[in-house]
Amino acid sequence: MTQPLKFYFDLLNQSSRALYIFLEASKIPFEAIPISMVKGEHLTGEFRDNVNRFRKLPAITDHGYQLSESAAIFRHLAREKLVPEHWYPRRHLGRSRTDEYLAWQQSNMTVATTDYFQQKWLVPYLQKTRPSESAVNVAGKQVEHTLNDFEQLFLNSRKFILGNNISYADLSAICEVDQTKAIGFGAFKNRNKLADWYKSVAEELGPYYKSVQKEFNAKLKLNNGQQQQGEAQAHALKQ
Amino acid sequence: MTQPLKFYFDLLNQSSRALYIFLEASKIPFEAIPISMVKGEHLTGEFRDNVNRFRKLPAITDHGYQLSESAAIFRHLAREKLVPEHWYPRRHLGRSRTDEYLAWQQSNMTVATTDYFQQKWLVPYLQKTRPSESAVNVAGKQVEHTLNDFEQLFLNSRKFILGNNISYADLSAICEVDQTKAIGFGAFKNRNKLADWYKSVAEELGPYYKSVQKEFNAKLKLNNGQQQQGEAQAHALKQ
Repeated sequence: MTQPLKFYFDLLNQSSRALYIFLEASKIPFEAIPISMVKGEHLTGEFRDNVNRFRKLPAITDHGYQLSESAAIFRHLAREKLVPEHWYPRRHLGRSRTDEYLAWQQSNMTVATTDYFQQKWLVPYLQKTRPSESAVNVAGKQVEHTLNDFEQLFLNSRKFILGNNISYADLSAICEVDQTKAIGFGAFKNRNKLADWYKSVAEELGPYYKSVQKEFNAKLKLNNGQQQQGEAQAHALKQ
Repeated sequence: MTQPLKFYFDLLNQSSRALYIFLEASKIPFEAIPISMVKGEHLTGEFRDNVNRFRKLPAITDHGYQLSESAAIFRHLAREKLVPEHWYPRRHLGRSRTDEYLAWQQSNMTVATTDYFQQKWLVPYLQKTRPSESAVNVAGKQVEHTLNDFEQLFLNSRKFILGNNISYADLSAICEVDQTKAIGFGAFKNRNKLADWYKSVAEELGPYYKSVQKEFNAKLKLNNGQQQQGEAQAHALKQ
Protein backbone atom coordinates (compact mmCIF):
# COMPACT_ATOMS: atom_id res chain seq x y z
CA MET A 1 0.00 0.00 0.00
CA THR A 2 1.28 3.46 -0.81
CA GLN A 3 1.97 5.49 2.34
CA PRO A 4 0.46 8.96 2.58
CA LEU A 5 3.83 10.20 3.88
CA LYS A 6 6.76 10.25 1.46
CA PHE A 7 10.21 11.13 2.77
CA TYR A 8 12.87 12.36 0.33
CA PHE A 9 16.38 12.29 1.73
CA ASP A 10 20.09 11.71 1.28
CA LEU A 11 21.90 10.13 4.23
CA LEU A 12 25.00 12.19 3.40
CA ASN A 13 23.01 15.11 4.82
CA GLN A 14 22.77 15.57 8.61
CA SER A 15 19.11 16.70 8.71
CA SER A 16 18.09 13.77 6.50
CA ARG A 17 19.68 11.36 8.98
CA ALA A 18 18.02 13.05 11.98
CA LEU A 19 14.56 12.90 10.41
CA TYR A 20 15.07 9.33 9.16
CA ILE A 21 15.96 8.16 12.68
CA PHE A 22 13.05 10.18 14.11
CA LEU A 23 10.58 8.56 11.69
CA GLU A 24 11.88 5.06 12.39
CA ALA A 25 12.16 5.45 16.16
CA SER A 26 8.66 6.98 16.36
CA LYS A 27 7.26 4.19 14.19
CA ILE A 28 5.61 6.64 11.78
CA PRO A 29 4.71 4.75 8.59
CA PHE A 30 6.47 6.35 5.59
CA GLU A 31 7.74 5.64 2.13
CA ALA A 32 11.52 6.21 1.96
CA ILE A 33 12.66 7.81 -1.29
CA PRO A 34 16.44 8.28 -1.49
CA ILE A 35 17.56 11.17 -3.68
CA SER A 36 21.23 11.55 -4.62
CA MET A 37 22.53 15.05 -3.95
CA VAL A 38 25.94 14.33 -5.48
CA LYS A 39 24.14 13.36 -8.69
CA GLY A 40 22.09 16.57 -8.43
CA GLU A 41 18.78 14.68 -8.41
CA HIS A 42 17.23 17.31 -6.09
CA LEU A 43 18.03 20.07 -8.60
CA THR A 44 15.88 18.76 -11.43
CA GLY A 45 12.73 20.45 -12.64
CA GLU A 46 10.77 17.29 -11.91
CA PHE A 47 11.80 17.35 -8.23
CA ARG A 48 10.97 21.07 -8.05
CA ASP A 49 7.56 20.67 -9.68
CA ASN A 50 6.40 17.46 -8.02
CA VAL A 51 8.20 17.26 -4.68
CA ASN A 52 9.81 20.41 -3.41
CA ARG A 53 9.77 23.89 -4.89
CA PHE A 54 12.87 24.82 -2.83
CA ARG A 55 14.84 22.01 -4.50
CA LYS A 56 16.23 21.09 -1.10
CA LEU A 57 16.62 17.95 0.99
CA PRO A 58 15.20 16.61 3.20
CA ALA A 59 11.60 17.08 2.06
CA ILE A 60 8.26 15.38 2.57
CA THR A 61 4.92 15.12 0.90
CA ASP A 62 2.08 14.22 3.27
CA HIS A 63 -1.22 13.38 1.57
CA GLY A 64 0.24 15.32 -1.36
CA TYR A 65 1.09 18.38 0.74
CA GLN A 66 4.72 19.44 0.10
CA LEU A 67 6.92 20.60 2.95
CA SER A 68 10.56 21.68 3.15
CA GLU A 69 12.97 22.77 5.94
CA SER A 70 13.94 20.06 8.43
CA ALA A 71 12.76 21.91 11.56
CA ALA A 72 9.37 22.58 9.92
CA ILE A 73 9.12 18.92 8.88
CA PHE A 74 9.91 17.80 12.43
CA ARG A 75 7.19 20.07 13.88
CA HIS A 76 4.73 18.93 11.23
CA LEU A 77 5.30 15.27 12.14
CA ALA A 78 5.15 15.98 15.89
CA ARG A 79 1.78 17.72 15.33
CA GLU A 80 0.14 15.53 12.69
CA LYS A 81 1.35 12.03 13.63
CA LEU A 82 1.39 9.91 16.76
CA VAL A 83 4.79 10.70 18.20
CA PRO A 84 6.21 9.86 21.66
CA GLU A 85 6.00 12.97 23.86
CA HIS A 86 9.67 12.95 24.93
CA TRP A 87 10.86 14.11 21.49
CA TYR A 88 9.12 17.48 21.88
CA PRO A 89 7.84 17.63 25.45
CA ARG A 90 5.14 20.04 26.60
CA ARG A 91 6.23 19.77 30.26
CA HIS A 92 8.58 22.30 31.87
CA LEU A 93 8.71 24.40 28.70
CA GLY A 94 10.59 21.61 26.90
CA ARG A 95 9.19 22.79 23.56
CA SER A 96 10.51 26.30 24.04
CA ARG A 97 13.95 24.93 24.91
CA THR A 98 13.90 22.57 21.91
CA ASP A 99 12.81 25.43 19.60
CA GLU A 100 15.58 27.61 20.96
CA TYR A 101 18.16 24.92 20.30
CA LEU A 102 16.89 24.19 16.77
CA ALA A 103 16.98 27.89 15.82
CA TRP A 104 20.49 28.26 17.27
CA GLN A 105 21.61 25.13 15.45
CA GLN A 106 20.33 26.39 12.10
CA SER A 107 22.35 29.63 12.22
CA ASN A 108 25.43 28.22 13.93
CA MET A 109 26.19 24.50 14.12
CA THR A 110 24.68 23.59 10.71
CA VAL A 111 26.55 26.40 8.96
CA ALA A 112 29.87 25.25 10.44
CA THR A 113 29.45 21.49 9.96
CA THR A 114 28.10 21.91 6.41
CA ASP A 115 31.03 24.07 5.42
CA TYR A 116 33.51 21.60 6.90
CA PHE A 117 31.84 18.69 5.09
CA GLN A 118 31.89 20.60 1.82
CA GLN A 119 35.54 21.58 2.06
CA LYS A 120 36.83 18.27 3.33
CA TRP A 121 34.62 15.84 1.42
CA LEU A 122 32.05 17.18 -1.06
CA VAL A 123 34.08 19.64 -3.14
CA PRO A 124 37.03 17.22 -3.48
CA TYR A 125 34.59 14.45 -4.41
CA LEU A 126 32.78 16.50 -7.07
CA GLN A 127 35.95 18.04 -8.48
CA LYS A 128 38.03 14.88 -8.16
CA THR A 129 40.76 16.74 -6.30
CA ARG A 130 42.34 16.62 -2.86
CA PRO A 131 40.83 18.89 -0.18
CA SER A 132 42.32 22.38 0.09
CA GLU A 133 44.25 22.26 3.36
CA SER A 134 43.75 25.93 4.13
CA ALA A 135 39.99 25.81 3.42
CA VAL A 136 39.64 22.75 5.67
CA ASN A 137 41.60 24.53 8.41
CA VAL A 138 39.39 27.62 8.27
CA ALA A 139 36.24 25.46 8.32
CA GLY A 140 37.68 23.35 11.15
CA LYS A 141 38.19 26.45 13.31
CA GLN A 142 34.51 27.30 12.88
CA VAL A 143 33.57 23.77 13.95
CA GLU A 144 35.79 24.08 17.06
CA HIS A 145 34.05 27.33 17.88
CA THR A 146 30.52 25.97 17.40
CA LEU A 147 31.23 22.81 19.42
CA ASN A 148 32.57 24.94 22.26
CA ASP A 149 29.41 27.07 22.15
CA PHE A 150 27.23 23.97 22.01
CA GLU A 151 28.90 22.49 25.05
CA GLN A 152 28.74 25.74 26.99
CA LEU A 153 25.21 26.84 26.03
CA PHE A 154 23.31 23.57 25.88
CA LEU A 155 25.06 20.79 27.82
CA ASN A 156 25.02 20.58 31.57
CA SER A 157 25.41 17.97 34.27
CA ARG A 158 22.30 16.13 33.10
CA LYS A 159 22.21 13.29 30.61
CA PHE A 160 20.46 15.06 27.72
CA ILE A 161 19.87 18.66 26.62
CA LEU A 162 16.45 18.87 28.34
CA GLY A 163 17.32 16.65 31.29
CA ASN A 164 16.78 12.93 31.80
CA ASN A 165 14.91 12.23 28.56
CA ILE A 166 16.15 12.39 25.01
CA SER A 167 14.51 15.01 22.76
CA TYR A 168 14.73 15.95 19.10
CA ALA A 169 17.34 18.54 20.08
CA ASP A 170 19.74 15.70 21.03
CA LEU A 171 18.96 13.67 17.92
CA SER A 172 19.41 16.64 15.65
CA ALA A 173 22.65 17.66 17.38
CA ILE A 174 24.31 14.25 17.26
CA CYS A 175 23.79 14.13 13.49
CA GLU A 176 25.45 17.55 13.22
CA VAL A 177 28.46 16.35 15.22
CA ASP A 178 28.67 13.23 13.04
CA GLN A 179 28.81 15.37 9.89
CA THR A 180 32.39 16.27 10.87
CA LYS A 181 33.33 13.31 13.09
CA ALA A 182 32.63 10.75 10.35
CA ILE A 183 35.23 12.39 8.11
CA GLY A 184 37.96 12.60 10.71
CA PHE A 185 37.27 15.66 12.87
CA GLY A 186 38.41 15.17 16.48
CA ALA A 187 35.27 16.48 18.12
CA PHE A 188 35.95 15.17 21.64
CA LYS A 189 39.47 16.49 22.22
CA ASN A 190 39.27 18.60 25.42
CA ARG A 191 35.48 18.19 25.38
CA ASN A 192 34.60 15.61 28.01
CA LYS A 193 31.08 16.91 28.46
CA LEU A 194 30.43 16.57 24.72
CA ALA A 195 31.90 13.06 24.70
CA ASP A 196 29.69 11.94 27.63
CA TRP A 197 26.58 13.45 26.04
CA TYR A 198 27.39 11.87 22.65
CA LYS A 199 27.76 8.42 24.23
CA SER A 200 24.43 8.76 26.05
CA VAL A 201 22.57 9.88 22.92
CA ALA A 202 24.05 7.16 20.71
CA GLU A 203 23.19 4.50 23.30
CA GLU A 204 19.65 5.79 23.78
CA LEU A 205 18.97 5.86 20.01
CA GLY A 206 20.29 2.30 19.72
CA PRO A 207 19.75 0.31 16.51
CA TYR A 208 17.92 3.13 14.65
CA TYR A 209 21.01 5.28 14.94
CA LYS A 210 23.47 2.46 14.30
CA SER A 211 21.92 1.37 11.01
CA VAL A 212 21.77 4.94 9.66
CA GLN A 213 25.37 5.54 10.74
CA LYS A 214 26.41 2.39 8.97
CA GLU A 215 24.74 3.49 5.73
CA PHE A 216 26.23 6.99 6.06
CA ASN A 217 29.73 5.55 6.48
CA ALA A 218 29.20 3.17 3.56
CA LYS A 219 28.18 6.10 1.34
CA LEU A 220 31.25 8.07 2.38
CA LYS A 221 33.50 5.13 1.58
CA LEU A 222 31.77 4.18 -1.67
CA ASN A 223 32.01 7.69 -3.00
CA ASN A 224 35.59 8.00 -1.77
CA GLY A 225 36.45 4.80 -3.62
CA GLN A 226 34.92 6.22 -6.79
CA GLN A 227 36.85 9.41 -6.24
CA GLN A 228 40.19 7.66 -5.87
CA GLN A 229 39.40 5.71 -9.02
CA GLY A 230 38.65 9.02 -10.76
CA GLU A 231 41.89 10.53 -9.49
CA ALA A 232 43.82 7.50 -10.75
CA GLN A 233 42.15 7.81 -14.14
CA ALA A 234 42.89 11.53 -14.31
CA HIS A 235 46.48 10.77 -13.33
CA ALA A 236 46.76 8.05 -16.01
CA LEU A 237 45.35 10.40 -18.65
CA LYS A 238 47.95 13.04 -17.81
CA GLN A 239 50.85 10.62 -18.29
CA MET B 1 2.73 45.88 38.88
CA THR B 2 5.69 44.03 37.45
CA GLN B 3 4.74 41.89 34.45
CA PRO B 4 5.82 38.26 34.44
CA LEU B 5 6.90 38.74 30.81
CA LYS B 6 9.91 40.97 30.13
CA PHE B 7 10.82 41.76 26.54
CA TYR B 8 14.37 42.93 25.73
CA PHE B 9 14.73 44.50 22.31
CA ASP B 10 16.26 47.09 20.03
CA LEU B 11 13.96 48.50 17.33
CA LEU B 12 16.96 48.78 14.97
CA ASN B 13 16.70 44.98 14.73
CA GLN B 14 14.04 43.41 12.45
CA SER B 15 13.09 40.51 14.75
CA SER B 16 12.73 42.89 17.69
CA ARG B 17 10.24 44.96 15.69
CA ALA B 18 8.28 41.88 14.57
CA LEU B 19 7.94 40.56 18.12
CA TYR B 20 7.15 44.01 19.53
CA ILE B 21 4.28 44.42 17.03
CA PHE B 22 3.13 40.85 17.72
CA LEU B 23 3.03 41.47 21.49
CA GLU B 24 1.15 44.75 21.08
CA ALA B 25 -1.31 43.52 18.46
CA SER B 26 -2.03 40.35 20.47
CA LYS B 27 -2.51 42.44 23.63
CA ILE B 28 -0.10 40.27 25.63
CA PRO B 29 0.86 42.18 28.80
CA PHE B 30 4.62 42.72 28.90
CA GLU B 31 7.33 44.94 30.31
CA ALA B 32 9.28 46.58 27.45
CA ILE B 33 13.01 46.87 28.18
CA PRO B 34 14.93 48.61 25.39
CA ILE B 35 18.58 47.55 25.08
CA SER B 36 20.97 49.49 22.86
CA MET B 37 22.91 47.26 20.50
CA VAL B 38 25.04 50.09 19.14
CA LYS B 39 26.12 50.81 22.72
CA GLY B 40 26.84 47.08 23.17
CA GLU B 41 24.45 46.79 26.12
CA HIS B 42 23.55 43.21 25.08
CA LEU B 43 27.21 42.16 25.26
CA THR B 44 27.71 42.84 28.96
CA GLY B 45 28.22 40.12 31.53
CA GLU B 46 25.18 41.38 33.42
CA PHE B 47 22.93 40.84 30.39
CA ARG B 48 24.46 37.39 29.85
CA ASP B 49 24.08 36.33 33.46
CA ASN B 50 20.64 37.76 34.19
CA VAL B 51 18.82 37.94 30.87
CA ASN B 52 20.24 35.94 28.01
CA ARG B 53 23.19 33.57 27.97
CA PHE B 54 23.43 33.95 24.16
CA ARG B 55 23.96 37.73 24.55
CA LYS B 56 21.53 38.26 21.69
CA LEU B 57 18.45 40.37 21.00
CA PRO B 58 15.50 40.01 21.06
CA ALA B 59 15.15 38.01 24.28
CA ILE B 60 12.48 37.41 26.89
CA THR B 61 12.21 36.27 30.44
CA ASP B 62 8.83 34.77 31.34
CA HIS B 63 8.27 34.14 35.06
CA GLY B 64 12.07 34.21 35.24
CA TYR B 65 12.53 31.65 32.45
CA GLN B 66 15.05 32.95 29.88
CA LEU B 67 14.49 32.44 26.18
CA SER B 68 16.41 33.51 23.06
CA GLU B 69 15.94 33.15 19.25
CA SER B 70 13.03 35.11 17.79
CA ALA B 71 11.24 32.13 16.20
CA ALA B 72 11.43 30.23 19.50
CA ILE B 73 10.11 33.29 21.37
CA PHE B 74 7.21 33.59 18.91
CA ARG B 75 6.26 29.92 19.37
CA HIS B 76 6.60 30.22 23.15
CA LEU B 77 4.18 33.18 23.20
CA ALA B 78 1.75 31.46 20.81
CA ARG B 79 1.73 28.43 23.14
CA GLU B 80 1.82 30.01 26.59
CA LYS B 81 -0.28 33.17 26.11
CA LEU B 82 -3.72 33.99 24.75
CA VAL B 83 -2.96 34.81 21.14
CA PRO B 84 -5.38 35.24 18.20
CA GLU B 85 -5.40 32.06 16.13
CA HIS B 86 -4.69 33.74 12.76
CA TRP B 87 -1.05 34.44 13.68
CA TYR B 88 -0.22 30.72 13.77
CA PRO B 89 -3.29 28.89 12.46
CA ARG B 90 -3.90 25.21 13.07
CA ARG B 91 -6.29 24.95 10.10
CA HIS B 92 -5.15 23.78 6.66
CA LEU B 93 -1.62 23.09 7.92
CA GLY B 94 -1.07 26.84 8.42
CA ARG B 95 1.45 26.09 11.18
CA SER B 96 3.54 23.90 8.90
CA ARG B 97 3.56 26.60 6.23
CA THR B 98 4.48 29.30 8.80
CA ASP B 99 7.26 27.09 10.21
CA GLU B 100 8.59 26.47 6.71
CA TYR B 101 8.66 30.19 5.98
CA LEU B 102 10.34 31.08 9.30
CA ALA B 103 13.08 28.48 8.76
CA TRP B 104 13.64 29.67 5.20
CA GLN B 105 13.74 33.27 6.38
CA GLN B 106 16.38 32.53 9.03
CA SER B 107 18.86 31.04 6.55
CA ASN B 108 18.10 33.33 3.63
CA MET B 109 16.26 36.64 4.01
CA THR B 110 17.65 37.50 7.47
CA VAL B 111 21.22 36.79 6.40
CA ALA B 112 20.86 39.09 3.35
CA THR B 113 19.01 41.97 5.03
CA THR B 114 21.28 41.90 8.08
CA ASP B 115 24.39 42.07 5.93
CA TYR B 116 22.97 44.95 3.89
CA PHE B 117 22.04 46.85 7.06
CA GLN B 118 25.49 46.30 8.51
CA GLN B 119 27.34 47.44 5.39
CA LYS B 120 25.13 50.40 4.59
CA TRP B 121 24.33 51.67 8.09
CA LEU B 122 25.82 49.91 11.12
CA VAL B 123 29.50 49.64 10.23
CA PRO B 124 29.63 53.26 8.96
CA TYR B 125 27.84 54.39 12.10
CA LEU B 126 30.16 52.56 14.49
CA GLN B 127 33.33 53.44 12.61
CA LYS B 128 32.22 56.98 11.77
CA THR B 129 32.98 56.46 8.09
CA ARG B 130 31.04 56.44 4.82
CA PRO B 131 29.69 53.06 3.64
CA SER B 132 31.98 51.04 1.39
CA GLU B 133 30.30 51.26 -2.02
CA SER B 134 31.52 47.85 -3.16
CA ALA B 135 30.45 46.12 0.08
CA VAL B 136 26.99 47.73 -0.19
CA ASN B 137 26.73 46.60 -3.82
CA VAL B 138 27.61 43.00 -2.97
CA ALA B 139 25.14 42.98 -0.08
CA GLY B 140 22.49 44.63 -2.30
CA LYS B 141 22.80 41.82 -4.87
CA GLN B 142 22.07 39.30 -2.13
CA VAL B 143 18.99 41.28 -1.11
CA GLU B 144 17.77 41.35 -4.74
CA HIS B 145 18.24 37.59 -4.88
CA THR B 146 16.41 36.89 -1.61
CA LEU B 147 13.50 39.21 -2.49
CA ASN B 148 13.11 37.43 -5.84
CA ASP B 149 13.05 34.07 -4.04
CA PHE B 150 10.61 35.38 -1.46
CA GLU B 151 8.24 36.60 -4.16
CA GLN B 152 8.51 33.39 -6.14
CA LEU B 153 8.37 30.87 -3.27
CA PHE B 154 5.93 32.49 -0.85
CA LEU B 155 3.72 35.07 -2.55
CA ASN B 156 0.82 34.13 -4.77
CA SER B 157 -2.42 35.66 -5.99
CA ARG B 158 -3.82 35.77 -2.45
CA LYS B 159 -3.56 38.67 -0.05
CA PHE B 160 -1.20 37.14 2.52
CA ILE B 161 1.32 34.28 2.61
CA LEU B 162 -1.20 31.78 4.00
CA GLY B 163 -4.24 33.16 2.17
CA ASN B 164 -6.84 35.68 3.29
CA ASN B 165 -5.61 36.13 6.87
CA ILE B 166 -2.40 37.69 8.11
CA SER B 167 0.00 35.37 9.96
CA TYR B 168 3.28 35.77 11.80
CA ALA B 169 5.03 34.86 8.53
CA ASP B 170 3.78 38.14 6.98
CA LEU B 171 4.63 40.21 10.05
CA SER B 172 8.11 38.74 10.28
CA ALA B 173 8.71 39.19 6.54
CA ILE B 174 7.62 42.85 6.35
CA CYS B 175 10.11 43.71 9.10
CA GLU B 176 12.84 41.98 7.08
CA VAL B 177 11.95 43.99 3.96
CA ASP B 178 11.94 47.20 6.03
CA GLN B 179 15.47 46.48 7.27
CA THR B 180 16.69 47.43 3.78
CA LYS B 181 13.84 49.65 2.55
CA ALA B 182 14.18 52.06 5.48
CA ILE B 183 17.77 52.82 4.50
CA GLY B 184 17.09 53.40 0.81
CA PHE B 185 16.88 49.99 -0.86
CA GLY B 186 14.43 49.98 -3.80
CA ALA B 187 12.67 46.77 -2.86
CA PHE B 188 9.65 47.18 -5.17
CA LYS B 189 11.37 47.86 -8.50
CA ASN B 190 10.08 45.16 -10.92
CA ARG B 191 8.34 43.46 -7.98
CA ASN B 192 4.65 44.28 -8.23
CA LYS B 193 3.60 41.23 -6.28
CA LEU B 194 5.90 42.19 -3.42
CA ALA B 195 4.59 45.78 -3.50
CA ASP B 196 0.94 44.63 -3.34
CA TRP B 197 1.65 42.21 -0.51
CA TYR B 198 3.63 44.85 1.42
CA LYS B 199 0.75 47.32 1.17
CA SER B 200 -1.77 44.73 2.39
CA VAL B 201 0.37 43.73 5.38
CA ALA B 202 1.14 47.32 6.40
CA GLU B 203 -2.57 48.23 6.21
CA GLU B 204 -3.66 45.15 8.15
CA LEU B 205 -1.13 45.80 10.96
CA GLY B 206 -2.31 49.40 11.16
CA PRO B 207 -1.25 51.60 14.10
CA TYR B 208 0.89 48.90 15.79
CA TYR B 209 3.10 48.79 12.73
CA LYS B 210 3.05 52.55 12.12
CA SER B 211 4.24 53.49 15.59
CA VAL B 212 7.10 50.98 15.53
CA GLN B 213 8.11 52.15 12.04
CA LYS B 214 8.13 55.72 13.28
CA GLU B 215 10.42 54.85 16.18
CA PHE B 216 12.68 52.80 13.88
CA ASN B 217 13.03 55.71 11.47
CA ALA B 218 13.65 58.14 14.32
CA LYS B 219 16.46 55.90 15.63
CA LEU B 220 18.02 55.71 12.16
CA LYS B 221 17.92 59.50 11.83
CA LEU B 222 19.08 60.23 15.36
CA ASN B 223 22.07 57.96 15.01
CA ASN B 224 22.78 59.27 11.52
CA GLY B 225 22.73 62.81 12.93
CA GLN B 226 25.21 61.79 15.62
CA GLN B 227 27.35 60.16 12.95
CA GLN B 228 27.43 63.25 10.75
CA GLN B 229 28.35 65.27 13.81
CA GLY B 230 31.12 62.75 14.51
CA GLU B 231 32.35 62.96 10.93
CA ALA B 232 32.40 66.77 11.11
CA GLN B 233 34.35 66.61 14.38
CA ALA B 234 36.83 64.13 12.88
CA HIS B 235 37.15 66.39 9.86
CA ALA B 236 37.73 69.45 12.06
CA LEU B 237 40.37 67.60 14.08
CA LYS B 238 42.25 66.68 10.93
CA GLN B 239 42.50 70.27 9.78
